[in-house]
Amino acid sequence: MAIVVMKFGGTSVADVGRIRNVARHVKREVDAGNKVAVIVSAMAGATNQLIAWANEASPFHDKREYDAIVASGEQVTAGLTAIVLQSMGIKARSWQGWQVPIRTDGAHGSARIMDIPGEDLRRALDEGEVAIITGFQGVEPGSNRIATLGRGGSDTSAVAVAVALEADVCDIYTDVDGVYTTDPRIVSKARRLPRVSYEEMLEMASSGSKVLQTRSVELAMVHHVRTRVLSSFAKPEEMAPVKVGELEDIGTIVCGEDEIMESEVVSGIAYARDEAKITMLKVEDKPGIAARIFGPLSDASINVDMIVQNVAADGRHTDMTFTVQAAELPRALSVLEAAREDIGNFELKSSDGIAKVSVIGIGMRSHAGVAAQMFKALAEKGINILAISTSEIKISVLIDAAYAELAVRTLHSVYGLDAA
Amino acid sequence: MAIVVMKFGGTSVADVGRIRNVARHVKREVDAGNKVAVIVSAMAGATNQLIAWANEASPFHDKREYDAIVASGEQVTAGLTAIVLQSMGIKARSWQGWQVPIRTDGAHGSARIMDIPGEDLRRALDEGEVAIITGFQGVEPGSNRIATLGRGGSDTSAVAVAVALEADVCDIYTDVDGVYTTDPRIVSKARRLPRVSYEEMLEMASSGSKVLQTRSVELAMVHHVRTRVLSSFAKPEEMAPVKVGELEDIGTIVCGEDEIMESEVVSGIAYARDEAKITMLKVEDKPGIAARIFGPLSDASINVDMIVQNVAADGRHTDMTFTVQAAELPRALSVLEAAREDIGNFELKSSDGIAKVSVIGIGMRSHAGVAAQMFKALAEKGINILAISTSEIKISVLIDAAYAELAVRTLHSVYGLDAA
Repeated sequence: MAIVVMKFGGTSVADVGRIRNVARHVKREVDAGNKVAVIVSAMAGATNQLIAWANEASPFHDKREYDAIVASGEQVTAGLTAIVLQSMGIKARSWQGWQVPIRTDGAHGSARIMDIPGEDLRRALDEGEVAIITGFQGVEPGSNRIATLGRGGSDTSAVAVAVALEADVCDIYTDVDGVYTTDPRIVSKARRLPRVSYEEMLEMASSGSKVLQTRSVELAMVHHVRTRVLSSFAKPEEMAPVKVGELEDIGTIVCGEDEIMESEVVSGIAYARDEAKITMLKVEDKPGIAARIFGPLSDASINVDMIVQNVAADGRHTDMTFTVQAAELPRALSVLEAAREDIGNFELKSSDGIAKVSVIGIGMRSHAGVAAQMFKALAEKGINILAISTSEIKISVLIDAAYAELAVRTLHSVYGLDAA
Repeated sequence: MAIVVMKFGGTSVADVGRIRNVARHVKREVDAGNKVAVIVSAMAGATNQLIAWANEASPFHDKREYDAIVASGEQVTAGLTAIVLQSMGIKARSWQGWQVPIRTDGAHGSARIMDIPGEDLRRALDEGEVAIITGFQGVEPGSNRIATLGRGGSDTSAVAVAVALEADVCDIYTDVDGVYTTDPRIVSKARRLPRVSYEEMLEMASSGSKVLQTRSVELAMVHHVRTRVLSSFAKPEEMAPVKVGELEDIGTIVCGEDEIMESEVVSGIAYARDEAKITMLKVEDKPGIAARIFGPLSDASINVDMIVQNVAADGRHTDMTFTVQAAELPRALSVLEAAREDIGNFELKSSDGIAKVSVIGIGMRSHAGVAAQMFKALAEKGINILAISTSEIKISVLIDAAYAELAVRTLHSVYGLDAA
C-alpha cells in the first residue's frame, strides 16, 4: 500500500467535468488500496479574476488581504473535488491550508512553507479517507492569517505535503505529458524525457521551463521526493496505479542522479522570452558595490536573473550586465537612478526584446567542449551572443529575442536531442 | 464614541465600485470617532454560482463541503472591502468566520451561532482598526470546519456580532430604504415605518417580508439590539454618523415597544406567495397524532408554516390543514404517504397556487374587531378565505394566489395605512 500525493493544476480542474476526470485518477489509486492526498489549484481563470478585483480595489493593496481573497479559489476546487469523489462512493474531505495546518512564514503573497504537522492528515488517510488539500496557501501561525505561496505555488504545496506524509511519490498532473527536451511548440522533434535529475529540472525551471515551479523542485531535491510529471488528460483507467518500491516509467520522473542509468551530456534546451538587459558601464570597482546595486532592486521586489560582471579596460572600473523581466525594466531603471548617489558614477544602457537560451545537462560536468559547441553553432547561424553565464550543469546566453526559436531549434539538433 | 455594526448585503457589494460606496459609509462613522465592525455578504450572484457548481458536482452533496465552497464568497468581499478602506487611509482588516471565531453548531448549511468570543475583535476596534467580518458563516469548533448559516444568514451574523461587541446599533444596509407597511411594488401608497417593534418585525419576517431574516430579528429581540434598516444607495456623506444614546430616525429602527410612542393598531400587511396547502381529512384524533404527522416532515427538512386543526363533525376525527413551500409539495405528499402506517387512516387533499396574507400590529392586543374587519373587507371583494391562523399580534389567511395583490391593497387601505 503506497502513499500517493497527486497534484492537479488549474486547467485540470477548470470545470466540474474536468474535476470528474481528476476524480477518476484518484479512484484508480484508491481502488488499488493506496492512501491518497490530492492537492488542487484554483479553477483556471479564477485566480486571475480575483487578482483583477484586488487590483481594482487598489493597485497598492495589503498583501494579507490579497492572500485572503485569492486563497478562496482553491477552497472552491477542494470542496467540489471532495463532493465529486463522494458521489463516486469514495470517502473524501477537503482541507484548507489553515485546517491542515500548512504553516508558512509571514511573507504574504510569496510565503514559504515552514512546517506541516502531518498527524491529522495521516489519521484521515489511515481511516481510508482521501484528503483534498488546497494548494498555493497556508496560514501564518503568529497572526492566524492566510498566506499564499505566490504563483505556481501549488507544486510546492504538493511536494511539501509529500514530505510531511513521507509519500512514495508526488505525482504532478498537468496539461503536458511530461518534461521535454525543449518546448514542443517550438521544436516539433522535442522528445519527452523519461527521467530527469533534480539538478537538471531545477536549472530548467529557473531557465524558463514552466512545467514545474523552481521552489517545488528545490524542495523535492532536498527531501528526495520522487516526483512525476504526468498528463491529467490521459485516460485514468489506462494508467497503472502506484506500487511501493517501483515506479512506472510514464510521464517524466524527477529523481536523484543515481536513479538515472545513462545521462546524456545535454538533456534539455530551455528558453525565456520577455527579458530585458541592463548594462551599467564604468561602475567604480569597490567592495560592496554589487550590494549597493542589487539591494535597492531587491527592496523594490524586482527579480534580477542573470548577472555578468566584467572588469573594464582601465582596471579601476567594472561593467555590470544583468537581466530583469521586460515588464519591470522601467521601474528597474528608475530604482537605479534613485540609487545613483549611493552607487557612484555609472553609465546606463538597456534594451528589451532579449531572450535567454540555456543548455542544461548533468553530463556537462564530465564533458569538455559543450560550451564551445554552443557558441560555434550559434555563430554559424549568425546569432550574436550578448552575454554568457555558466554554472556546473548549465550554459545560458542572452540573444536578440527574434532569434530565440532558431537558436533553440539549432541547439536541440546540435546536441543530438531531436527525435528520430 | 459609539460602537457601530454595519451590514451590507450582496447587491451593496456587487462590484468594486459599490464596495467603494460601502467604504464611504464606513468612513463617515470612522471620521466621527466611532468604532466600526462591518459584516459583508458575497457579491451578488457569487453565491448562486458556487451553489450551482456544488449541485453540478452532485445534487446530494456533503453539506460540510458545500459550506467550504460557498463560504468563499464572503471571504472575497471582506478582503476587497479591507483593501478599499485602506486605500482611503482607514486602518482595516478582514476577519473570516474561523478567525474571529464565530462558533456555530454542527448543522452545516443552516448552522446556528453558539458563541462569539469578542476579545480579539474588541482589541482591534480599540486600536482604531475597522473589522470587516465575513457574514453567513462560522466555524464548528469540534471539527474545525466551516459552517454556514443558510441563506440570508448575514443579517444574523451582524446582530450576533453586535451582541458580542455590545454595539450601540446594528445598521443593516440594504437595497430598500427601510421597512414598509407593505411591499411598495404592489401598493404604491405603502409608507416607510420610522419604527417597528421586534415582535412586529418578527411576524413580518416570518410572514413573507424579506427585508430582515427571521432569525436575526429573534436574536435582536432577545438581546435588545437596536437594529436599523437603511439604504446603502443613499449618499454616505449626507447621513449623520451614529451618536451614543440617540439614534437618528432614518430608515426604520427595529426596537422595543417602549421606544415606540404611539403604535398604530395595524402596522403592516405581509404576504407570501408560492405556498401550497395540504389538508388531511378524517385523521384519528388521538394523543401524539400531530407529532406523527409533523415529525417525518421535519426529518425530511420540509418547512411547515401555518398549521390549522379542526375537530371533524363526528368528534372522533380531526382535520389538519397546513402549508409548505409549493416547491416542496410533491416531496411532502410522499413523506406523508410513507408515514401512513404510523399515522393511521386519512384522506389527503392538496393544492398549490396559494398565498398567505397577514395583518400585523402590536395594537391588536388592545383593539377588538381587527380580525372581523379583515374578513369583512376580503368578503366584500369576493375573496374566499381557505384557512385562518391568528397570534396575539397577527392574523393570517390563506387565499387563492391570484387574489394576493388585491387582498394586500384592500387591507392596506382598510387599516388606514395608505400614504396621504
